[in-house]
Amino acid sequence: MNHLALLPRRRGRPPRDASVPRQDTRELLVRTGVAVLTEKGYSAVGIDEILRIAQVPKGSFYHYFDSKEAFGQVLIDAYASYFAHKLDRWFLGVPVPPLQRLRHFIEDAKAGMARHGFRRGCLVGNLGQEMGTLPESFRVQLQMVFRDWQSRTAGCLAEAQQAGEIPPQLDCSALAQFFWIGWEGAVLRAKLERSPEALDVYAQGFFALLSPGP
Amino acid sequence: MNHLALLPRRRGRPPRDASVPRQDTRELLVRTGVAVLTEKGYSAVGIDEILRIAQVPKGSFYHYFDSKEAFGQVLIDAYASYFAHKLDRWFLGVPVPPLQRLRHFIEDAKAGMARHGFRRGCLVGNLGQEMGTLPESFRVQLQMVFRDWQSRTAGCLAEAQQAGEIPPQLDCSALAQFFWIGWEGAVLRAKLERSPEALDVYAQGFFALLSPGP
Repeated sequence: MNHLALLPRRRGRPPRDASVPRQDTRELLVRTGVAVLTEKGYSAVGIDEILRIAQVPKGSFYHYFDSKEAFGQVLIDAYASYFAHKLDRWFLGVPVPPLQRLRHFIEDAKAGMARHGFRRGCLVGNLGQEMGTLPESFRVQLQMVFRDWQSRTAGCLAEAQQAGEIPPQLDCSALAQFFWIGWEGAVLRAKLERSPEALDVYAQGFFALLSPGP
Repeated sequence: MNHLALLPRRRGRPPRDASVPRQDTRELLVRTGVAVLTEKGYSAVGIDEILRIAQVPKGSFYHYFDSKEAFGQVLIDAYASYFAHKLDRWFLGVPVPPLQRLRHFIEDAKAGMARHGFRRGCLVGNLGQEMGTLPESFRVQLQMVFRDWQSRTAGCLAEAQQAGEIPPQLDCSALAQFFWIGWEGAVLRAKLERSPEALDVYAQGFFALLSPGP
């Protein structure tokens, strides 16, 4: 998923004094951090590596962030917002049947992974997997992100149900929770195999679950 | 999953000279390594930490393993064997309907995670997620492990299909692949939430997929 290109620009004009582009430096650090964490996770990456890639001196980092932990929290927030925006873009107010919207989101995620040679996965999934070595403050933050994505996805599924695309007895919230639980496994496997196959297999199984039976 | 207790003992008698318990030291390193990797993954853990936990001097490590990479390969193999053995124990030759065997495996995995306070997940899932920073030699090895587990699971599902527990038109190999793709996501989420809920939600969805429809 092309985070670097798609992360929303910060609002407002850049500062007047071009020799001190504060917001730009901070934004550059966040963009670089998100890109690196989607590929390598948190534990394996030092601040030095991110600074080297972003070509930002170490002093600047501690001007914007108190610690690697504080930086990590900002990265989770940035990725969560970026992704919530992406889900809204696919799910809300588009003239496409609701289940087709979910298919489009999946195709877009697939294309995003392919664009990066299946090296980048999901920042939140990576950090969830690493939770054994992460600052404890990340745990609730990551859980809230999943809850948010599930809720947006449940909304799309509820629309599908209203449109008769999903049997009325199915629980859309539970289905959305199921989707995100397994989807992170599919992203993990796609990275491991450097192939879209796991995403396709998972999507096919998930849509079978929504169908009114054989 | 209680690797330390369940890893099979090496075959044969211990060496006669008790002052040089070579196999025991190697086995201790492997057991400790597997336990640590299921909790923390590969990148965040140094050999020093494993040696400290196992109370083995550094010189001994390099007597048994050429490098951290070689050690990692041995750990993947040890975990894969342990787990294949576990799957066989649940799936083969037990006087229980085939789908019930899969349920028992899931309950056992849940109990294993609970026993370790949901801190330990799956070594293969952890390493799959970390693949962006791992030695490239791990990639094929990890893929082969998934293929092996899927194949054993497909065998159990095929028995279920023969017994009429699964509709005849479903593809048991594809279902087994789907199961393992999503199951790793469920283990990840259970670790993040320190709760069995994700395992239950995933299992419920998966069994719904096997049912003959509403």
